[in-house]
Amino acid sequence: MSEIKRVYRFGGKIAEGDGTMRNLLGGKGANLAEMCRLGMPVPAGFTITTECCTEYYANNGQFPAELKADVDASMAATEKIMNMKFGDPECPLLVSCRSGARSSMPGMMETVLNIGLCSATIPGLIKRTNNPRFVYDAYRRLIMMYSDVVMEKAENIEPEEGHGIRVQLDRMLAKVKEAKGYKSDTDLTVEDLKELCEDFKVRVKQELGKPFPDDAYEQLWGGIGAVFKSWNGKRAIAYRRIEGIPDDWGTAVNVQSMVFGNMGENSATGVAFSRNPATGENKFYGEWLINAQGEDVVAGIRTPNPLNEATKNEHNKNMASLETAMPEVYKELDQIQQNLEHHFHDMQDIEFTIQDGKLWMLQCRIGKRTGIAALNMAMDMLHEGLIDEKTAVMRVAPKQLDELLHPILNPEEEKKVAPVAQGLPAGPGGSVGRIVFTAAEAVEAAAKKEKVILIREETNPEDVEGMRAADGLLTARGGMTSHAALVARGWGKCAIVGCDALKINMINRTATIGDKLFKDGDILSLDGTKGLVFGQAIPTMNASENPRFIEYMKIVDKYRVLGVRTNADNPYDAQTALDFGAEGIGLFRIEHMFYGKNSAEPLAKLRKMIMSNTTVEREHALAELEPFVKEAAKGTMKVMDGKPVTFRLLDPPLHEFVPQTAEKQKELAAAFDITVADIQKRGEALHEVNPMMGHRGVRLGITYPEVSRMQFKAIFTATAELMKEGYTPQPEVMIPVTISVRELNFQKNICEEVHAQIEKEYGVSIKYLFGTMIEIPRAAIIADSMAKTAQFFSFGTNDLTQMTFGFSRDDVGAFMPDYLANKILPADPFQTIDRFSVGKLVEIGIKGGRSTNPKLKVGICGEHGGDPASVEFCNEIGMNYVSCSPFRIPIARLAAAQAAIKANEAK
Amino acid sequence: MSEIKRVYRFGGKIAEGDGTMRNLLGGKGANLAEMCRLGMPVPAGFTITTECCTEYYANNGQFPAELKADVDASMAATEKIMNMKFGDPECPLLVSCRSGARSSMPGMMETVLNIGLCSATIPGLIKRTNNPRFVYDAYRRLIMMYSDVVMEKAENIEPEEGHGIRVQLDRMLAKVKEAKGYKSDTDLTVEDLKELCEDFKVRVKQELGKPFPDDAYEQLWGGIGAVFKSWNGKRAIAYRRIEGIPDDWGTAVNVQSMVFGNMGENSATGVAFSRNPATGENKFYGEWLINAQGEDVVAGIRTPNPLNEATKNEHNKNMASLETAMPEVYKELDQIQQNLEHHFHDMQDIEFTIQDGKLWMLQCRIGKRTGIAALNMAMDMLHEGLIDEKTAVMRVAPKQLDELLHPILNPEEEKKVAPVAQGLPAGPGGSVGRIVFTAAEAVEAAAKKEKVILIREETNPEDVEGMRAADGLLTARGGMTSHAALVARGWGKCAIVGCDALKINMINRTATIGDKLFKDGDILSLDGTKGLVFGQAIPTMNASENPRFIEYMKIVDKYRVLGVRTNADNPYDAQTALDFGAEGIGLFRIEHMFYGKNSAEPLAKLRKMIMSNTTVEREHALAELEPFVKEAAKGTMKVMDGKPVTFRLLDPPLHEFVPQTAEKQKELAAAFDITVADIQKRGEALHEVNPMMGHRGVRLGITYPEVSRMQFKAIFTATAELMKEGYTPQPEVMIPVTISVRELNFQKNICEEVHAQIEKEYGVSIKYLFGTMIEIPRAAIIADSMAKTAQFFSFGTNDLTQMTFGFSRDDVGAFMPDYLANKILPADPFQTIDRFSVGKLVEIGIKGGRSTNPKLKVGICGEHGGDPASVEFCNEIGMNYVSCSPFRIPIARLAAAQAAIKANEAK
Repeated sequence: MSEIKRVYRFGGKIAEGDGTMRNLLGGKGANLAEMCRLGMPVPAGFTITTECCTEYYANNGQFPAELKADVDASMAATEKIMNMKFGDPECPLLVSCRSGARSSMPGMMETVLNIGLCSATIPGLIKRTNNPRFVYDAYRRLIMMYSDVVMEKAENIEPEEGHGIRVQLDRMLAKVKEAKGYKSDTDLTVEDLKELCEDFKVRVKQELGKPFPDDAYEQLWGGIGAVFKSWNGKRAIAYRRIEGIPDDWGTAVNVQSMVFGNMGENSATGVAFSRNPATGENKFYGEWLINAQGEDVVAGIRTPNPLNEATKNEHNKNMASLETAMPEVYKELDQIQQNLEHHFHDMQDIEFTIQDGKLWMLQCRIGKRTGIAALNMAMDMLHEGLIDEKTAVMRVAPKQLDELLHPILNPEEEKKVAPVAQGLPAGPGGSVGRIVFTAAEAVEAAAKKEKVILIREETNPEDVEGMRAADGLLTARGGMTSHAALVARGWGKCAIVGCDALKINMINRTATIGDKLFKDGDILSLDGTKGLVFGQAIPTMNASENPRFIEYMKIVDKYRVLGVRTNADNPYDAQTALDFGAEGIGLFRIEHMFYGKNSAEPLAKLRKMIMSNTTVEREHALAELEPFVKEAAKGTMKVMDGKPVTFRLLDPPLHEFVPQTAEKQKELAAAFDITVADIQKRGEALHEVNPMMGHRGVRLGITYPEVSRMQFKAIFTATAELMKEGYTPQPEVMIPVTISVRELNFQKNICEEVHAQIEKEYGVSIKYLFGTMIEIPRAAIIADSMAKTAQFFSFGTNDLTQMTFGFSRDDVGAFMPDYLANKILPADPFQTIDRFSVGKLVEIGIKGGRSTNPKLKVGICGEHGGDPASVEFCNEIGMNYVSCSPFRIPIARLAAAQAAIKANEAK
Repeated sequence: MSEIKRVYRFGGKIAEGDGTMRNLLGGKGANLAEMCRLGMPVPAGFTITTECCTEYYANNGQFPAELKADVDASMAATEKIMNMKFGDPECPLLVSCRSGARSSMPGMMETVLNIGLCSATIPGLIKRTNNPRFVYDAYRRLIMMYSDVVMEKAENIEPEEGHGIRVQLDRMLAKVKEAKGYKSDTDLTVEDLKELCEDFKVRVKQELGKPFPDDAYEQLWGGIGAVFKSWNGKRAIAYRRIEGIPDDWGTAVNVQSMVFGNMGENSATGVAFSRNPATGENKFYGEWLINAQGEDVVAGIRTPNPLNEATKNEHNKNMASLETAMPEVYKELDQIQQNLEHHFHDMQDIEFTIQDGKLWMLQCRIGKRTGIAALNMAMDMLHEGLIDEKTAVMRVAPKQLDELLHPILNPEEEKKVAPVAQGLPAGPGGSVGRIVFTAAEAVEAAAKKEKVILIREETNPEDVEGMRAADGLLTARGGMTSHAALVARGWGKCAIVGCDALKINMINRTATIGDKLFKDGDILSLDGTKGLVFGQAIPTMNASENPRFIEYMKIVDKYRVLGVRTNADNPYDAQTALDFGAEGIGLFRIEHMFYGKNSAEPLAKLRKMIMSNTTVEREHALAELEPFVKEAAKGTMKVMDGKPVTFRLLDPPLHEFVPQTAEKQKELAAAFDITVADIQKRGEALHEVNPMMGHRGVRLGITYPEVSRMQFKAIFTATAELMKEGYTPQPEVMIPVTISVRELNFQKNICEEVHAQIEKEYGVSIKYLFGTMIEIPRAAIIADSMAKTAQFFSFGTNDLTQMTFGFSRDDVGAFMPDYLANKILPADPFQTIDRFSVGKLVEIGIKGGRSTNPKLKVGICGEHGGDPASVEFCNEIGMNYVSCSPFRIPIARLAAAQAAIKANEAK
C-alpha cells in the first residue's frame, strides 16, 4: 500500500473509517463505517476517498498509480468477509459502485450495480442461487446501467435527445414485453432475459463503438471512473450551484458487496426515516418493495408498500406493510433505526435490503426534512432530552422558516371544493398556478415571476432546475421517498407525488386528472399538506400563528445577540412585523407614500413641488405635502410605540415622480394649469444618464434645503402629537446617499432648528437620533469622519453592492447569468453580501465609525438584512441590528441566534 | 502686552518679525520686516497677525480684548521712529491699513490710506507740509475710501447697483470738475477740495446713517476691522476658490506710516519688477507716476511712465523715465532691487514711493509671472548661478506650462493683416473670439465652451470670474501692473491692456477701435505677446518647439522618477505625444475608432455585429471588423515603435453605437436589409437604466467571448506584421471594468489561445503584457487577487471616482455647484483625485497588488493623470507611470519631477 491512505475498508462489524470522517469518505462511506462499528449488518466493502477524486482531477482524469494495489488488497479483504470471490467462476462476488459526497446530493451522481457479472461468473452465480432468472435479470440491469453511465455519460458522448443508449435499451425491453403481451418486467422469462442481454450487447457495441466489457475488474474500474466523472456532470454542477456546495470537494466511491432485494418473494428493499420527514411526526416511517432493487423504490416506477401499520395512509392502506409481512426483520430494522437515531441524535434516512430473509443495511444518513418537520423534530427531540436547546436552535435552517410563513390554501375555501384527485403529500403548503409540462417552461415562467405548477409523469434529475422554478409540483408516479419528493422537500416546495389519477399526454399537451381534462395553461391548486389536487384556483392565506413556532422562536431569542428590526412604511406592515417579532423599524422610506394605493393625494402635492419654479412656490407645495408625511409618520410610530422608527429622508431622484405617459401628463397639466410641454420639459431637465448616481438622497436636501426641512417638520410634529396623546414615539432621522460629514452637518443644522421650533410650539422635549445610511463607498471609507456627527449608521448594502461592483441592479440581468454560469462569481452579490469587497467596506466603516464615536449604533437595511449568510456576517462584525422585510424577520432572528451560537463555539 | 504676541513691529532698520514668518505676518508683513532687517528704507509700522484674524472670526467678529494695548504700544514705537504722533495736532502721523495674506491675493482685499486725518490734525499737517491742497486731496481720498470700505462694505450694506457710496462720491467729484471745466483731478483747487470734503461728509451721513469719524483712533480701528472683514468678502472667497487657498488661513493687517508720492513734483510712486514678468527678460522693469499715490498706478487711471530707458516701448517711448527724471533715486532703487533679488533668489515685485525726493520701500514680494517668463527666469537664474537645478525645476508651476503649449496667432497669417490698434502686451499668446462686454456674458459663453474676448474700459476685482472665463482680454486703460494685467498673467491668459484706441459704448453695446466700429458678437484676434489687436479672425497655431523649453524639460526629466505615457488612439495623437516626451501609450481606447472622422466603415461593421442574432452571425461581422482594428493598432504601434502601447478592450455599452435618430435608423435598416423596428428593438433591448454600471467592458467579453477574441487577434496580427517589417512593437493588453480575477483568467485563456495561433501563423515570438484597469472599488479592494493574473494595473480614476462617490459624471452638474458653494466638497473630485477616498482605494489596490505580485507595474490613466496635484499623489504612492492626453504631457513630466524633489526633501 502507498503512503497516502486512499482506501478505507469496512465489514464484519469493524471498519477502518468512522462517522467523523465525512470529508474524506463522504457521508455514505463514513456512515457505512460507523454502522459497522455499531455492529449493524452492513455488506462488506471499501471506500475510495474524496481526496483521491481530487487527485484524479488534478491528474487530468487519471487514477493515481498506487490505487490499483490498494483496491486489489481491499477487494481481497472484502472477499474474505463475504466468503465469495470477485470474478470467481464458482462463488462470484458482485459489487456496487456508489458516489458519496460530503454533503448529500441525492440522485445527482452515478451508481453502478451488479458489477462483476460476466460470462465467466454467470454460471457460478446461477449455480449458487439456483435462480437463473434472477441472474439474467441482474445481468440485463448491469448492461443497461453500465452502458448508460460508464460507456456513454462518462465518455461525454452526447446522443441526440431520445436516442441515448438507456432509452434505446428501454425501448427494446418494452418491445419484447409488448410482443409477448407482458404487463410487468417480472413477466419476463429466463430465455427472454438471456436473449435480451445478447441483443443489448450487440446494440451497445453498434451504438457506442465498444463491446460491453466481459471482465469483472474492467467493469469495476469503469464504475469507479464513472462515479468520479459524475462529480462534474451537468446535473451535479447545477445542484451544487443551487445548494452552494464547493466544486472542489470531490466525491468518494463506495465499492460494496451486492446484496439482492430481488432474489424472490423472500427478498425486498426499502427506504425509511426514523421520523416522518414531511411532518416531523415521531413514527418510524418508510416504504418498501418486495422482490426489488433499491433503485426501484427511489425511481418511483412501482408504488411502494408502507413500512408499518401506524403510518399507513389513504393511498396505501390496502397494501401489506413490512411489519406484517416480515415481522422479525421489521423488528430488527426498527431496533436499528432507534439505535441510529440515538447514536446520531438526529433523524435518520436509511436504506436497507432484505436478501433471502436477511436484513442488510446499505446506508444511513441525516434525513432531509421540510421546515415544518425540522421545527417539530427539533422541539420533540428537545423535549425528549435527545438534544439541548442550542442544538434545537441549530436544527432548523433559517431558509426553512420561510415555508412556515408561506401561504396555504385557505381551509374555508378548500372545504367548499371537491378535489379532482389525491396523491402523496410530498411537500406541504398550498400552491396555485398555471399548468406547465416541462422543466424549461417552468424556468421561463419563473423568469417572468409567473406562478406555475409543473406536472410530470415522474421527475428525474434533469428536471431539477424546473422543479426549483415551479411554485408547485405534481407527479403521477413515485412515493414519498422518490426523487421528486426528496428534492421538493429539500426546498420546502409544495408537492404532490404518486397521483395515479394523473395521465399526461405530452403530444397534445393535455392531462386528465380523474375524469377531467386539463390543457396547457389551465389553473390547478395543490394542497401539499394533504395531497389534494383541485381543478380550479383556490384562494391562499398565510399560515396562522403556530404555537410550536412561537415556542421555538422564544428559545431562538435566548441565544440571539443581534437586534432585528423591520423595513416598513405603514401601520399595516409595521403590525405584521411586530407580530413576527420586530424590535423596531430600521427603514421607513418616506417615498413609499407616493407609490401604490392611497398615494394619489400626496403624489399630487409632491408633483406640484417638483413643478415649482421658485423656492417660494416650492415651499408652498411642501407646506401642502407636509400633513401627509406627518400622518404617515404618526400612524407607523403609533403602532411601533416605544420602539425606534428610523425615517429615511426622500431617496429617489425626482424624475421618478414625473408622469411618463401622455395621458398622465395631460391630467397633470390640467390639474396644475400648465402645459404638457412644461411637464415634458421638466421631465427632460430632470432626466439623468445614470440616475442611480445622480441627483438623489441628501443631494436633494442640499440643493433644496426646504425639502429636508419639510420632512423634519413632519417627523417632529408627528412625534410631538403622539407624545401629547400619551405615546412614547422614538424617531430616528436618517440621511441617505451621503459621502461627507459636511452633508450631515448641513442637514443637522436644519434638523435642529426645526426640532427646537416644534419643541417650543408643543411644549415637549423630543428625543431623537440623527444618523446616516452608509451606502456609498466613500462614506464607508471616511466613516471615522461621518461618525463625528452621525449617532448611528445603517449600511445600505444594496446600493453599496451596486457601487462596489459597478453593477446596476436594473441592468445586471444582461450578464449575471453568464457570470454565474462561468463561475466568475460564486453567488449573486445582491442576495448574499460579498465578504471580500462590500463586507470589507462595511468592516472599514464600522471600525472607522466606532473609532471616533464608540457609542455609534450600527445596523443594516435592505435585502441582505434577511439573508442568513449575511446576517451571520453582520453578527460577526459586531453590528447592533439588522433590518429586513416583515416576512423575513423570523429568518433573521433564527440566523442571528445561530450566528451567535457558532461564534461562541468558535471561541 | 498679552501673552500671545499679536503685533510685530518694524521700522528703523530693525524688526520683530522676518521674512520666514509669512504664515503669521502674511507675505507683505514678513517682507516689510525682512526689508527693514536688510537696512532698506521702510516707513515704520506694525503687523497684526493672521492668528489674530482667526481669533477675530472665532470670536464672532470681536477684537481680542488685549489687542488694544498692543496696538497702542506699537503705535507709540512707530511714532518714535518716524518722529511724528498719530492724531497729534502739531505733527500728525498718518498711517495706512493693508491686508496681507500668506499667499498673494492681489486686489481681493481692502486697503485704507491716509488714516489719521481729521479736523484735529489737518491744520498741523498743513503747517508742516505747507501744502494745503495736498492735505485736502488726501482728506477727500480718505473719505472716499473709508466710507466705501469701512462704512459700507464692512458693514455688509448692499446698495443698489450703481448707488454705492463710492460711485456717488465719484459722481460728485466729476460734477465739480465738469462745472469748473477741469480736465484732471489735479486741476482741483484747495477750495474745491475743502468744499468737496464737506459735501462728502454730508452725503456719507445721509446715505450710511452715520457721520464720517473725526477721530484718528476710531478711523484706525475701523480700518483694521474692515481689513479683517474683507477676508470673507465675496471677491476674496471667489478668488480663494479658484486658487485653492484655504478659507481658514486669515489675513494679517499692516499698519504703516504713510509716505506720500503726491506731495508735489518731487514726489512719485511706482511699481517695479526685478525682471520682466511677461517675458522673463532680465531687465529692471516697472512703471511710475509723478505726484501720485500708489493706487493710481495699480488702478490704471493714468497711463504710467516707464522706469528706465532700457525698457521703453512703442507706447511710452516719449514719456520720462525715472532713470532720467530722478537719477539718484533711481540708482538707489536699482541697487535695492538687485539686493532683494540676490537675497530672495527670485524675481521681486516691489512698490515704492518717493516723498519729497526720498525713496521709501512699501512692499516687496515674489513676483507673479507668465509661464514663458517663469521658464525664462528659471533658466536664466540657473545659468547665472543664482539658483540650482532643483530650484529651477520648482520655479515653473506645472499649470503654467499650459501657456507655453497654447496657441499663438499664426505669424505668417498675422503679417498679412494690419492691426486696428496696439496696447500693452499684458498676457502673451494668441486669442480669437467673439466680443463680449461684461464678465457675466463671458461666464455664460464659457459654460457653452464658446471662445470670447472680454473688452472693458478697465477691469476691477468684480470682473475676476469673467476674466477667468474669457479666452482673451482687452482693456482701454491700465498699465502692465494694473489689475487686469496682474490677474491675466497669473492665469496665463492672453491679454492686452491700456489700449487707448479702444472706446466702449456700453449703452449701444458697441466699441470703436481706432476708426473701426465693432458690435456685440463681432470677432477680434489678439496677439498678447506683441499687444496687437486685429479686427478679424486670424488662424492660430501651436507654439512651435521652443529650444529653451526643450532644455528645461531635459533638466526636469533628470529629477523625475515617475514614467509619463499618453492616452492616444491614432498615429497623429501618438506623434504629438512623442514630441511632447511621451514614453509610451498608457491608454489606447479601441472604441475611439468608431467616433469622429474615418469612422464610417468600421462603425458600420460594429453595428452589423451588434445587430447579429446568433454567435455565427456575430463572428462573421467581427471577422469583417477585425482588419480595421488591426490597422488602427498597427499604425499607432508603428509611431510608438519600441515603446509600450496599452490597448484597452472595447469599453462602452453597445447601445452607444445604435443610431438614435429616425433618419440614421432608416439608413442602417436599408444597409442591413432589416426593418427600422428591428433596430429600435435592439436599441431598446440594449437600453440600460444606469449604463455606467451596466453591460460594458469585460462584461461584454464574458457574454460575447468572440468580441474579445477579435480584438486580441487584431492586436497580435498588427504586432506580428510590424515585427516582420522590422519594427519592435510592445503591445500590452488591458481588460476594463473588472471586478474579479476570474474575469481576467477567462479573458486570458482566450488571449493566450489567439496569441499562440498568431505566433504560429507568422512564425514570430510575440512578447506582451496582460493587465487590467482598476476602476471599480471591488477591483481595488481585492487587488491582491487581481494581481495573480494581471501583470500591470492601470487605475481608471475617472470611473473609480464615479463609483466611490456615487457621482455620475454626466449628471453631477445638478448638484456639484451647490456642493462647492456650500463647501461640502473642497474641490471637484473629477479634477483632482480625492485622497481621502479614491486615493485610499488606489493605495489599497497598489499595496494589495504588489503583495502577491512584487513586479506588478502600476499606472493611472484618465483626467487625473495630467493634474499636477494628482500626479504628486501618484508619485507619493509609488506608481510606475501616469498617462494623460498629449498636451498635458509636459505638465505631467514637470509635476512628476517636482513631486520627486518634494518627496526627497521631505525625507
